[in-house]
Amino acid sequence: MDNQKIRVDFPMLIKHPDFIYFDNAATTQKPKSVIDALTNYYENDNFNVHRSVYSAAERTTQIFEACREKVIQFINAKENKSIIFTAGTTQSINQVANGYYKYNLKKDDEIVVSIAEHHSNLLPWQNIAKQNGSKLKYIDINEDGTLNLESAKKVINTKTKLLAITAVSNVLGTINNLKALINIAHQKNVDVLIDAAQAAPEIKIDIQELKPEWMAFSGHKMLAPTGIGILYGRKDLLEKMHPTQLGGEMIEHVDKNNFKTKDIPYRLEAGTPNIEGVIGLSTAIDYLQSLGMNNIEKYCKALGQYLYDQLTKIDGVTVYGPEKRQTGIVSFSIDNIHPHDAATYLDFNNIAVRAGQHCAEPLTNKLGVNATLRASMYFYNNKDECDKLIHKIIEMRSFFNGA
Amino acid sequence: MDNQKIRVDFPMLIKHPDFIYFDNAATTQKPKSVIDALTNYYENDNFNVHRSVYSAAERTTQIFEACREKVIQFINAKENKSIIFTAGTTQSINQVANGYYKYNLKKDDEIVVSIAEHHSNLLPWQNIAKQNGSKLKYIDINEDGTLNLESAKKVINTKTKLLAITAVSNVLGTINNLKALINIAHQKNVDVLIDAAQAAPEIKIDIQELKPEWMAFSGHKMLAPTGIGILYGRKDLLEKMHPTQLGGEMIEHVDKNNFKTKDIPYRLEAGTPNIEGVIGLSTAIDYLQSLGMNNIEKYCKALGQYLYDQLTKIDGVTVYGPEKRQTGIVSFSIDNIHPHDAATYLDFNNIAVRAGQHCAEPLTNKLGVNATLRASMYFYNNKDECDKLIHKIIEMRSFFNGA
Repeated sequence: MDNQKIRVDFPMLIKHPDFIYFDNAATTQKPKSVIDALTNYYENDNFNVHRSVYSAAERTTQIFEACREKVIQFINAKENKSIIFTAGTTQSINQVANGYYKYNLKKDDEIVVSIAEHHSNLLPWQNIAKQNGSKLKYIDINEDGTLNLESAKKVINTKTKLLAITAVSNVLGTINNLKALINIAHQKNVDVLIDAAQAAPEIKIDIQELKPEWMAFSGHKMLAPTGIGILYGRKDLLEKMHPTQLGGEMIEHVDKNNFKTKDIPYRLEAGTPNIEGVIGLSTAIDYLQSLGMNNIEKYCKALGQYLYDQLTKIDGVTVYGPEKRQTGIVSFSIDNIHPHDAATYLDFNNIAVRAGQHCAEPLTNKLGVNATLRASMYFYNNKDECDKLIHKIIEMRSFFNGA
Repeated sequence: MDNQKIRVDFPMLIKHPDFIYFDNAATTQKPKSVIDALTNYYENDNFNVHRSVYSAAERTTQIFEACREKVIQFINAKENKSIIFTAGTTQSINQVANGYYKYNLKKDDEIVVSIAEHHSNLLPWQNIAKQNGSKLKYIDINEDGTLNLESAKKVINTKTKLLAITAVSNVLGTINNLKALINIAHQKNVDVLIDAAQAAPEIKIDIQELKPEWMAFSGHKMLAPTGIGILYGRKDLLEKMHPTQLGGEMIEHVDKNNFKTKDIPYRLEAGTPNIEGVIGLSTAIDYLQSLGMNNIEKYCKALGQYLYDQLTKIDGVTVYGPEKRQTGIVSFSIDNIHPHDAATYLDFNNIAVRAGQHCAEPLTNKLGVNATLRASMYFYNNKDECDKLIHKIIEMRSFFNGA
């Protein structure tokens, strides 16, 4: 992958050449192809879908449904009825919790998550567990931040009904061994939901190979607009799912006292969808596939390793997660400098990193800190940017420690 | 309002000069200022909000929150904590049903709607009524399609807990007398939810004057992107509302078994919001206000009247709704020609109208038809386009009737 050539595709990077954007786990920048697809939509195809008999709107409906096919192909799922468009990962997971497990969990049933979940794959399960009298159990991590598979084997038992687990930790940058986890779960007839919000941008996920029951991810973390997300569900489960929202586009027939819903996927997509979000996501997938997901994974991993190696050479810097890096996400802290102060210092120097708990408070508690710094890099970042960050961290230590 | 000058602001209209778009109640076209605002966002301000300490993301957060202020000012609400960003009207209304009335309606309590509601302001109430053992009652319409206020007075009683009513019928184009309705409801301590999806684009709604408890509307019907909607709620009710979605951005503190939410509005906005949708909506409001909502209302009403007057001159054409038109929406049917065939004929002639039940099946049943044609016009439409439609309808009648 030619990083300099790739950067030209991103107007934000070209217009702000001195700005180092290392907050890609919060949201990614958009390539020109995605921005142009949105403009083209507004100028030529801006009609509501699924409703109209005139040809312009029918064409837009075809474009919209072709995007569903594109998502199917991206995750190698079997059929397009298994893809539900949502407003984002948060809505996808809440829909599974409130539309399915709310009706399928009994008292003393157990839900298993890991200690490294993003709040959006934790709070819905805390809530459903409380509502239904079920129990929430945690898989622990090893010393180096990787998921403890022995812990998974112990925690998942015959009472477990669901394993809800992230594919990539948005703090530690670790990739969970989904194959092993799903194997452990399926041996005990446990459903599996994959939170792929952080994984979909960076690693290839193959539904037909892994066979999870559910998977959720967001557009905006993979070059597409905000406000659009995906819920993959096994078809027979989606067919049993209760709609969590009711309204237009999802019904076959309504009278004063009753309504009859359409089949999936429409039954689970009430109201006008985020049409341009869907088109943006499809265009983003085209872009990602033109680079190749394997190339993206390799590049980000190497860049994460490079930054890790440089960071660990600096006295007083602690990096969280394993020595052998797996993605472009690197969380760390600097002795005697509060993460917020460090982020502010870097901001003065035109480097954007996150400081905080990264929506994963139980994990930061587990790490024994209040907050960390996080540099999350994507394929348009490069070693030169890492070097600048390293340089500024060294400078900052002198500045704060009066060295 | 100079229609020719206005049309230049809409790339879709300029690029497709021979296309007559009369399906504005389904979704509106976007002015260049909105499209440009989105591009500018992607090129300069594309950062996640509410999370980061670096200045670029803080600037985006400020822009985002300024959009909330813009919405407040647009509907003349009092304070910005009363505005919740949602994915659209459908989500707004479902959030009120599932986050508030689900917890506040008892057996035999009554919900009142009108027979002319869009499904998105009907199905959530049918559902809650069934869940809670409450009753759903209907306000009827008069012969001419206007809402029957006497019926409202009869139906709303001391058992009524909520009146959920549209401000503008998306089929008949009638404007309901909200002041009178809210007066009837409030005299009996009945909460009022206004479905303003069809009204917000065309008429000024003043929250401080009308004092409804709730109001919902969508961006995409008022020049903004899809995937963004507004829920206005009275502050004390929003404070009591249960979040219907849980995840990032909404919490203060999370541990393994519990979480503590933030205050409104954030408590009710889980996950990354539709940031560009919010910016698009704010830019759309700027555009609408530059024209003046009163001017828009006057123009659309006059255009609706013009089309009505021409249509009623044609033999065999039935127009639904009152003689004195109130908006730019005109539903009609043509003797011996199925609405779908008529819409297809018009489509061949580059005129886009809707045919169907317009997501308001109980109303089309009430009108005694299976479907209607609907021409829904906005301020960028004009009499010249109406004349072309009229000409084609006359031609179509000869064609189908072999005259």
